[in-house]
Amino acid sequence: MGPQALEDLVTALARLPGIGRKTAQRLALFVLKSPPGEASALAEAIQGARERIGHCTLCYNLTESDQPLCRVCRDEGRDRQVICVVEEASDALALERSDLMRGTYHVLGGALSPLDGIGPDDLRITELLERVRRDGVREVILAHNASAEGEATAEYIHQRLDSMTRVTRLARGLPAGSDLDLADRTTLAHALQGRTTF
Amino acid sequence: MGPQALEDLVTALARLPGIGRKTAQRLALFVLKSPPGEASALAEAIQGARERIGHCTLCYNLTESDQPLCRVCRDEGRDRQVICVVEEASDALALERSDLMRGTYHVLGGALSPLDGIGPDDLRITELLERVRRDGVREVILAHNASAEGEATAEYIHQRLDSMTRVTRLARGLPAGSDLDLADRTTLAHALQGRTTF
Repeated sequence: MGPQALEDLVTALARLPGIGRKTAQRLALFVLKSPPGEASALAEAIQGARERIGHCTLCYNLTESDQPLCRVCRDEGRDRQVICVVEEASDALALERSDLMRGTYHVLGGALSPLDGIGPDDLRITELLERVRRDGVREVILAHNASAEGEATAEYIHQRLDSMTRVTRLARGLPAGSDLDLADRTTLAHALQGRTTF
Repeated sequence: MGPQALEDLVTALARLPGIGRKTAQRLALFVLKSPPGEASALAEAIQGARERIGHCTLCYNLTESDQPLCRVCRDEGRDRQVICVVEEASDALALERSDLMRGTYHVLGGALSPLDGIGPDDLRITELLERVRRDGVREVILAHNASAEGEATAEYIHQRLDSMTRVTRLARGLPAGSDLDLADRTTLAHALQGRTTF
């Protein structure tokens, strides 16, 4: 139908998560209509990100390739004896945006999921235990997704950390601005179980 | 927060239509996690599409840069005396996918929209009149979007074509598989006005 180069671009874009062929075609046609400089900028940003971003050797968060430690781990003001354990780098980014975390991170690289064949050895759990042991960590905050996989991973890490350090987890309950009558049963159960004195 | 190259990629992706910053970040992190070859393929597809795709000198549809005429206009089997007028190249692609069109296209490059400052001189209307005059066109099918701008553009072109040739337009009515009780009033009005004998 269309030119081959257009088909190629649509196919490449449709590999992105959440982008179907229809959206991919819309994006491709937008790229064709945009000024040449902008299309080049996008192409270079994709290439550049792949080349210039690596993983922090301490916490496995994203970092510039020429920097072995990420911004958080380089920051002298951050408390290295508090480690917030997250599944993915995007979770660390979300917490950084909130500007609430004064500790450091540890990016596991996923969650335990036997159905997908992801076991403890596929996550950076040994590295976490090593950090806790070596750096005299005071607190490990488990900041997993509120999913079955997240729960299972938190449970597993809690067991492995045993009594090495204090282990906490994020609170469960009603999200800010939500209607109680629209909350699901599990959320209500967490909100009730975790109720605090007024 | 994150590495600069990541920020750059998120910014570039967020310029795409319908892609907000959150989606852009999700896509960027996906690109970072994907094999290097795939990221390069996407970057090259973007660059390549921009370089290797141009506009048909006859109908302004998309074509390979080294081909002055698009696939449809090059096809000897297509009826050049029937021109289907569309707003964008994506509309021509949609009609081609349906495999119902035996004529050729004319891509206007948009629709009349005084509020956006788009007048007749911004669309390829003169070029259309020229084609109709020169090629002894039998029929011009106006295949505009069913929007106010589309209607206005069709109306304008109809007037300009005057009695040069036969001018038709796509039927309005109930879309296939739709529920009558969910159809809006305008659609119902079109469906009633355009009713055909059974």
